[in-house]
Amino acid sequence: MDNLTGLRKQINLINNEILKLLNKRAALVQKITMLKNETGTDYYDPMREAEMLSDILNQNKGPLPDELVKEVFSSIFHTALNYMGISNERKLLV
Amino acid sequence: MDNLTGLRKQINLINNEILKLLNKRAALVQKITMLKNETGTDYYDPMREAEMLSDILNQNKGPLPDELVKEVFSSIFHTALNYMGISNERKLLV
Repeated sequence: MDNLTGLRKQINLINNEILKLLNKRAALVQKITMLKNETGTDYYDPMREAEMLSDILNQNKGPLPDELVKEVFSSIFHTALNYMGISNERKLLV
Repeated sequence: MDNLTGLRKQINLINNEILKLLNKRAALVQKITMLKNETGTDYYDPMREAEMLSDILNQNKGPLPDELVKEVFSSIFHTALNYMGISNERKLLV
């Protein structure tokens, strides 16, 4: 349905799907955190971030322009780093 | 596969799925832009943003904490507004 209400309902569904993927991603990031703890590896890996961004932009068919895709994924990467710190603190409290 | 390479491959797939959803969302935002142009309605609707965020946080089952989910979606909403401006400029140039 292409009136405002219908379009907003569709966006609500997409928001929820994005949320699920963000959490699925975070669960994988949690596993990486544990691996990195075992090997004493830095969480922040700028080469890995650059590589992910490059892959994402290569696959971007729009309509979002690359600079806006980059902005959203920078936020996703930033929150993942935050999350690695948080999930590490919780481990240390156990 | 739960070694670093395997986990990164899984994250690459999720990044791509998120990208597709962001673009699907942007296509809907484009339709909303056109509707709002017809009715002369403001693009920025803080009540609608608050409502979307509230729905999203109500559905958040983790592991991401609410504040990090909020950070990512603030970025998504911000880029959507930017995109509405860009997609409007392109229309005016036609």
